[in-house]
Amino acid sequence: MNIAILTIGDELCIGQIINTNAAWLAQSCTDIGAHVHRHITIGDSTTALLNELHVLSKEVDCIIMSGGLGPTHDDKTKETLVSYFNDTLILDEETLHNLKARARLRGLPLNQRNIDQAMLPSQCRILSNPRGSAPGMLFQKDVIYVSLPGVPSELKGIMNDHVLPLLRSEIEKESGNKPFFRTILTKGIPESALADLIGDPTAFLKDDDSLAFLPSYHGVRLRIGVLNAEPHTAQHRLDELQTLLIDKVGEYVFGYGNDTLLSVTTELLKQQQKTISVVESCTGGMLGSAFTQQSGSSSYFIGGFLTYSNELKMVLADVSEQSLTQFGAVSKEVAEEMAKGGRQRLQTDYCISITGIAGPEGGSEEKPIGTVWIALASEKQIIAKRFNFGNDRAINRERSVAQAIAMLYDDLIIKG
Amino acid sequence: MNIAILTIGDELCIGQIINTNAAWLAQSCTDIGAHVHRHITIGDSTTALLNELHVLSKEVDCIIMSGGLGPTHDDKTKETLVSYFNDTLILDEETLHNLKARARLRGLPLNQRNIDQAMLPSQCRILSNPRGSAPGMLFQKDVIYVSLPGVPSELKGIMNDHVLPLLRSEIEKESGNKPFFRTILTKGIPESALADLIGDPTAFLKDDDSLAFLPSYHGVRLRIGVLNAEPHTAQHRLDELQTLLIDKVGEYVFGYGNDTLLSVTTELLKQQQKTISVVESCTGGMLGSAFTQQSGSSSYFIGGFLTYSNELKMVLADVSEQSLTQFGAVSKEVAEEMAKGGRQRLQTDYCISITGIAGPEGGSEEKPIGTVWIALASEKQIIAKRFNFGNDRAINRERSVAQAIAMLYDDLIIKG
Repeated sequence: MNIAILTIGDELCIGQIINTNAAWLAQSCTDIGAHVHRHITIGDSTTALLNELHVLSKEVDCIIMSGGLGPTHDDKTKETLVSYFNDTLILDEETLHNLKARARLRGLPLNQRNIDQAMLPSQCRILSNPRGSAPGMLFQKDVIYVSLPGVPSELKGIMNDHVLPLLRSEIEKESGNKPFFRTILTKGIPESALADLIGDPTAFLKDDDSLAFLPSYHGVRLRIGVLNAEPHTAQHRLDELQTLLIDKVGEYVFGYGNDTLLSVTTELLKQQQKTISVVESCTGGMLGSAFTQQSGSSSYFIGGFLTYSNELKMVLADVSEQSLTQFGAVSKEVAEEMAKGGRQRLQTDYCISITGIAGPEGGSEEKPIGTVWIALASEKQIIAKRFNFGNDRAINRERSVAQAIAMLYDDLIIKG
Repeated sequence: MNIAILTIGDELCIGQIINTNAAWLAQSCTDIGAHVHRHITIGDSTTALLNELHVLSKEVDCIIMSGGLGPTHDDKTKETLVSYFNDTLILDEETLHNLKARARLRGLPLNQRNIDQAMLPSQCRILSNPRGSAPGMLFQKDVIYVSLPGVPSELKGIMNDHVLPLLRSEIEKESGNKPFFRTILTKGIPESALADLIGDPTAFLKDDDSLAFLPSYHGVRLRIGVLNAEPHTAQHRLDELQTLLIDKVGEYVFGYGNDTLLSVTTELLKQQQKTISVVESCTGGMLGSAFTQQSGSSSYFIGGFLTYSNELKMVLADVSEQSLTQFGAVSKEVAEEMAKGGRQRLQTDYCISITGIAGPEGGSEEKPIGTVWIALASEKQIIAKRFNFGNDRAINRERSVAQAIAMLYDDLIIKG
């Protein structure tokens, strides 16, 4: 099952929005054992869409399109598909019923644009969309053509309800090899040093095996892949390769697959029944936001102070005026006092503080832009570290949060 | 100047990471008046890359590639380009010098993998990369071929330093029409109602004009486009179209171009010299994080409380135990008390509170998952609103933040 992902919309083509749909679609197709051949993004153009359909229908088994199904004149996917398949539009009563119900719920009249959305190609299977107005469409010819709305929640709903079950059953019918992947997550070692430790991959990879290095701010991920017809054999080979890599670089490994350093760290907090609070300055709440991403976070995350002003650092977290005057708000002393004060006031096992010059303004020679102090207070000690992540404010804040989580992880792992 | 964006990497193709580079590249090219023809994403495959180069070189004037330049075996772009152009690798002394300096700075030895990164194709112009190890490459043939590293900060640096200046000068030499865009940002009106107010676009759009509706959580954006050889004439036509649209839907317009509701709102805070604080429960710091995204935010953002536990709602924000018991933590009363208490304790002009059931667990019949109360306290009043954004935790939190900012915007606009 070779799949092409075709995302449609001027806003994507000119880069006005980031294409999160393509990644989500590719990941869901990969997860069920399909092979994503390539992604293409085009603007709202009938000609461009017809071209891609002609080319891709010769390359792949399934084309998943998203976008261009809205009610306005720049939405051209439905009309283009009608023309491509030499089809006609007919009224779909169920879609019309759904549109009427939605309008009633919102207390809005149903206008002609909405009614037109219930006119659908006669040859397609209609994929109902309870989350929105435009349903998806599926044309099962020599190639499977799927057309989905561009709104992410609607796209995901239709994929999960209709498209993935169909593709899964098609893949089950296939007899050939399918790709299987596993990802090993490392931290604290650069890509080239990791590659040196692992050595020449051809020494242990067989023909159908693959090994990829995926660097990110949070560490390098190692993705191993195998091709096999049998899921069981594939998993066994992945186990072998995983064991081999763990032997070489195990000390840098913190998790697998969809784990993140955050998810692994919060899992350790739960296991060890520890609570955490935050006192944030330059990150303004990003660390607290990270700790509360997962459902169930109330078992470890208690709360925090956003002490953006120096006054609040004193009033809320008991930072001394002397430390602020003598060492400045971005200093070891202030970071430590923030974490210590926060831990006492908020009554938690751990408290993390972050204070820094996020930029792009405000640096000095002694403390250039990007200087960040992070402190971790626990029952027995306070650890403080200085970082510099450069001039970009957003990257600075993001990496500060990642390092704060890494400091907590390191402490929990030692105790675990 | 027709451009294709070709992003390379298995991690992109299987959807393991979101393709932010493609959007950034497309936006920068569009900004200088180039036309982005399409985006393609392929895996780490020499065959796939050669295929795309053959096809795209017949379609466009410039191919911008990113990815596959790292030091490990799965990075294949450089070797593929050498083969495509029938070129050879030679040592580039400047790149080697840069690599040595980087290694020295980090106190790491320079290994063979790093040294190999200084071997570069003889026919290319080398695009220096002070932010990383792999330089970019530019082959100026009938078509311009650009190859960039996949790390976003390095890619952006090389584009800004080398590629965009070159493309800009090439575009200046062209005599034909170029696309110009402007975006008008609306809120508080659905796409189809907006389309009805605007009426049939063919009544006012000329041949080379375009109008697109771009819906998002934050409201529908209207993007007008014109094609013209003269920037001055193009801007004049955009002015005309903008005036025409403002006449029709002006009451829903809050900004233009790269404005966001957040940037417009914080600008109003600055103009009116008002300060803001936050008391967050289910969003855990996301609202504070939003208010501190921009440099200079200390002029309006003072700080906040993350009151994830009920106890902290009482201790920090003076929420009464009675309200918590009688109405629950997710209620009008508690939201109002949080905002009122936060405003008093943190001494700001405005305070926004958010308390909700973010999901995917924890709802009841009376308060289903997704129920969120947001309150805005100011000198003269407290406004509280109830929302329900559905079952998805991440979307729920994101939309809560967007609505909190919208409530503040509405109050500031009335007073402004």
